[in-house]
Amino acid sequence: MERRHKEAMESLEEIAGLFYDQLDKGNIPEIGIATRSKSNIVFHKKSGVWKYGKSKSTRSAKKLNGARMILRTLYMLDFIREMIDREKSSTLREMYYISEGWEKAKFGDQNESDRLAEDMEIITSCLREDFKLRPEEDGARLIGDITIKERTRKGDIRTINCRDDVGDSGYTIPYNVEEEKVNFQDIGVDFIIAIETGGMFDRLVENGFDETANALLIHLKGQPARSTRRVMKRLNEEEGLPVVVFTDGDPWSFRIFASIAYGAINSAHLSEYLATPSAEYVGITASDILNYDLPTDKLSANDITALEQELQDPRFNTRFWRDEIETMLEIKKKAEQQALAKYGLDFVTDTYLPEKLGELGLL
Amino acid sequence: MERRHKEAMESLEEIAGLFYDQLDKGNIPEIGIATRSKSNIVFHKKSGVWKYGKSKSTRSAKKLNGARMILRTLYMLDFIREMIDREKSSTLREMYYISEGWEKAKFGDQNESDRLAEDMEIITSCLREDFKLRPEEDGARLIGDITIKERTRKGDIRTINCRDDVGDSGYTIPYNVEEEKVNFQDIGVDFIIAIETGGMFDRLVENGFDETANALLIHLKGQPARSTRRVMKRLNEEEGLPVVVFTDGDPWSFRIFASIAYGAINSAHLSEYLATPSAEYVGITASDILNYDLPTDKLSANDITALEQELQDPRFNTRFWRDEIETMLEIKKKAEQQALAKYGLDFVTDTYLPEKLGELGLL
Repeated sequence: MERRHKEAMESLEEIAGLFYDQLDKGNIPEIGIATRSKSNIVFHKKSGVWKYGKSKSTRSAKKLNGARMILRTLYMLDFIREMIDREKSSTLREMYYISEGWEKAKFGDQNESDRLAEDMEIITSCLREDFKLRPEEDGARLIGDITIKERTRKGDIRTINCRDDVGDSGYTIPYNVEEEKVNFQDIGVDFIIAIETGGMFDRLVENGFDETANALLIHLKGQPARSTRRVMKRLNEEEGLPVVVFTDGDPWSFRIFASIAYGAINSAHLSEYLATPSAEYVGITASDILNYDLPTDKLSANDITALEQELQDPRFNTRFWRDEIETMLEIKKKAEQQALAKYGLDFVTDTYLPEKLGELGLL
Repeated sequence: MERRHKEAMESLEEIAGLFYDQLDKGNIPEIGIATRSKSNIVFHKKSGVWKYGKSKSTRSAKKLNGARMILRTLYMLDFIREMIDREKSSTLREMYYISEGWEKAKFGDQNESDRLAEDMEIITSCLREDFKLRPEEDGARLIGDITIKERTRKGDIRTINCRDDVGDSGYTIPYNVEEEKVNFQDIGVDFIIAIETGGMFDRLVENGFDETANALLIHLKGQPARSTRRVMKRLNEEEGLPVVVFTDGDPWSFRIFASIAYGAINSAHLSEYLATPSAEYVGITASDILNYDLPTDKLSANDITALEQELQDPRFNTRFWRDEIETMLEIKKKAEQQALAKYGLDFVTDTYLPEKLGELGLL
């Protein structure tokens, strides 16, 4: 059994032990969990990311709902133990269906079971991957001159160069990218470009920009999956590769950047594992819309609300972001990264990215 | 230049020639295009697929809209010629943005430019890929013992075994899978299982079902992209591999099966390229919901309407489909493929699929 899974199992057994001791002493079982809200997000200076603060809520068997959640917790611990023993894993959706057999502990819907799995992460400081649970998310693709070693499902180690040993669609990031599964052998690139849309990823691949810029290209597929953020974090931390994020120019894309650089609000307990605080933004800005005279769409009411919320969001409280968000609210326009094609298929690799990457000293 | 692109270019030049001749003779330019509606779909006995019938609509420069479409057509021909000359390709979205520079021929939205690209396919009997146009769609993944040869963007041929040379996420299907790009070298599997959801794909991979069943596993990612359907069609036709389709049990999944087996209504001009008429359905049926007592969701009003439409759809006019659709309407329930996890993570590979594949003589 892998060390990580063994530690996860021990942490989960501690939870069961806690309930046992409470019952043994004649007390009503209860457990405290960090409150998961915007007001309980605090900046952690040492690691440069946003994490949950000290506020806690208590889940107690005094009430029917609390008692049911504690029963579910115990069933879930048992299911995870079985998976770790049998070297199996399951999707969150499968776990939800498996709970159909848990009688009184059955979940009402998948949100409940997903959330309980996250609670287990928060309480134990383990990752969902340590529990052998994984999402439906499809892996994102990457292409560029790095050589990884992947331990396959059969246990052997496969060495794959992500430029020379793969097709033009690149290497697909597996759902588990922890050390037990993925390691980096050779790094032939200088930095990472994380790209929001598949169309733009394929554009940079076709134009050979991974080689021109000596960069690793990663397709984010919108809001990136955990495994995608984790792979960037590991390459940044272990191999010292700078990360730049190339997105559309709209409030939702700004949030994609924030979740990569600072951590996401609904997974703040994982910020240290997932966030890359030194990541830089090279996506479309309101200034770019004006300077390059890009094709735009009008901001919707939802877009405007989202931008206004971002002005209140501590993660965007810098001069650069305040200026860009305010300009976007003034011009009332957003633009996609593919809008750069207005100036031809090569404009993004001949002009736009070299300008942005030049400013950062990366090209 | 590849033969396919050369032929596409010649066909497109014929369109330009047609307009030229019409103008030369002092006539108003016009062009006829197959009507794209359910009523103009006919069964083509020889190939076993549904295609557009004889009904045509005429686009004429007599009216402003028609004139504008003819102008756009000419701009598009020119853009495609440039791409073929320069060995470039572009997404449909990039083409839409490029049209920003076409002044009076600018498109109002991307639907218009996508549709015109499809019109060009219908008129010329070429594929969008021949025009160097591609969608945003992300490639689906496959895993199993087949060896493919992929011509990379640099022009060299890369040989990849889709079980032994890839990570556990498998080989990602590129957006172009025509012979100029992808060919099959060795086939070590007996048949293909096409799977709707990523969770179920990963389940079969984890359980090693590709090896137990000696099958190629393909992840459909919901309604499959053209390249996914094309790869199945080619493996079926060129290598004689039977195809089975494993989906959720709801009206939308039935349509996924129909689009694989019989062709989709909005791309009926491509049925011969994309459809695999011998494909068999091994997805969840209403009978399975009853026989296996699966966890279900209630049919929504939309689900019911979709099922009723399917009873009118010539593609579902078989005893099997009528029975299953009527039973589903009676029990008013649908189920996901992952609902099989109610009986544990191995039920699908130990019981469900062996039963279904046994009936078909594939296992």
